[in-house]
Amino acid sequence: MILLDGNKLSAKIRSEIAARVGEYCGNTIRPPHLAAVLVGDNPASQAYVRNKIKACEEVGFTSTLIKKDASITQSQLLELIHELNASEDLDGYIVQLPLPRHIDEEEVNLAIDPSKDVDGFHPNNFGRMALGMSSFLPATPMGIMMMLERYDIQTEGKHCVVLGRSNIVGTPIALLMSKKTKPGNATVTIAHSRTHHLPELLRSAQIIIAALGIPHFVKADMVSPGTVIIDVGINKIEDPANAKGYRLVGDVDFDNVKDKCAAITPVPGGVGPMTITALLENTWRAFRQKF
Amino acid sequence: MILLDGNKLSAKIRSEIAARVGEYCGNTIRPPHLAAVLVGDNPASQAYVRNKIKACEEVGFTSTLIKKDASITQSQLLELIHELNASEDLDGYIVQLPLPRHIDEEEVNLAIDPSKDVDGFHPNNFGRMALGMSSFLPATPMGIMMMLERYDIQTEGKHCVVLGRSNIVGTPIALLMSKKTKPGNATVTIAHSRTHHLPELLRSAQIIIAALGIPHFVKADMVSPGTVIIDVGINKIEDPANAKGYRLVGDVDFDNVKDKCAAITPVPGGVGPMTITALLENTWRAFRQKF
Repeated sequence: MILLDGNKLSAKIRSEIAARVGEYCGNTIRPPHLAAVLVGDNPASQAYVRNKIKACEEVGFTSTLIKKDASITQSQLLELIHELNASEDLDGYIVQLPLPRHIDEEEVNLAIDPSKDVDGFHPNNFGRMALGMSSFLPATPMGIMMMLERYDIQTEGKHCVVLGRSNIVGTPIALLMSKKTKPGNATVTIAHSRTHHLPELLRSAQIIIAALGIPHFVKADMVSPGTVIIDVGINKIEDPANAKGYRLVGDVDFDNVKDKCAAITPVPGGVGPMTITALLENTWRAFRQKF
Repeated sequence: MILLDGNKLSAKIRSEIAARVGEYCGNTIRPPHLAAVLVGDNPASQAYVRNKIKACEEVGFTSTLIKKDASITQSQLLELIHELNASEDLDGYIVQLPLPRHIDEEEVNLAIDPSKDVDGFHPNNFGRMALGMSSFLPATPMGIMMMLERYDIQTEGKHCVVLGRSNIVGTPIALLMSKKTKPGNATVTIAHSRTHHLPELLRSAQIIIAALGIPHFVKADMVSPGTVIIDVGINKIEDPANAKGYRLVGDVDFDNVKDKCAAITPVPGGVGPMTITALLENTWRAFRQKF
């Protein structure tokens, strides 16, 4: 069994990005610059944004954290978006989700300049991806594709079952895996809460990408020997043995499944770090479209 | 077995559209207006465009056929696109594909104003569709969804195998069938030329949407009893018995498959007329966004 180590691979790719920054930028060209907009004080959002900022520093990017109070109005937030769109100084930015309930997330997403949309959620980028054109890919599916590529996982003609159909993971990874690309070129099934006979379907898969958000959903008896498993879930479960009182687990029952697999991602330390590395890669690309 | 009669259903929906035009438009509001750009003299393209123009007349829309010589340059064509975008008089337009080889189809597609893109191929519309937002849907998958809805075909939780992953049919219909909508909410598998064990996969389907472009590809032994089949293929095969020397057949071996099906579309007279009806519906919606 190959452990698909997102921490190790991310460290490698990030050192490559840092080397590119070192070679390309100097006295005449400023480094790539990513901004993150954080609204309110959701602890999970704060942690995600902190990790993104830290990753920028690691590779030599400039980063800016823009913190706004949860009471910000829709028009104030849109005004900020317009400023970020206009800023010459900035290559890309993200607006950390979720936003407070009184904010219309769709309107905010539509206001982001697609050329700075390093999260890849603007319809223009999402549509380009779906049509097989070059675009900023959403970070999590992009991180998965980078991982499959770097670990040289064979995907062509394989049956890949994607569990979940969210806009953030399930739908885009299904699209990417079905395209005539390498990695890709798989036969892809999009499964979800309404799917019948799910254990049988999962057993027919050579690749499983689990993005349901249900802890330990995929059990050993749902997996055929030799399967490659990408576990996107990050779920908190109670754990009195842990000092925090909880620990993070994936959508896959890792301990009981791992020995049946050809390859599997751990949680944490699998897809999570790759997601942030993909965001860095998108920021680099946004930068290189300008410089 | 239910024959999913695209001619009959289209006639019904077109009479509904005609009634809407009659009720809504009068002395003060002009009727909806669709333009079709036809470049060169490809006989198939000419026939498609002729049918679209005819359908417009049938429902009381204004239509304009813009014929251009195959020698038109990229910049001349783009100039025409900009004129059509600016025209107050026009609700939507299509540029009939394929274009001559010296024309960059992607650049032409990107130049179309998304609010007039009634073919739904601009990344902005395609992305909105993929994200589950309202948009102009590409005509063929939209026609299929209308047919499933009007014939009240149950799709929720069913296994739908889509044969083909083109931008025009396979990819968008897979997206639409996977969304939490009615029709939709199916477990969707995207299959293609690289798919292994295709007969077995097809036998596991309760719904098959065939869009490969290979005559009579789907045989009776690949279909389980009670399957719903949507045949998108329109293929010419030699037929000495026919006065034209050929006839049109689908991707499904209709004569041998039909008795195993719960429902099936004929070719011709199935998806084809629904595609044009969907284009009319999109034109109506484009019109109603202005008036």
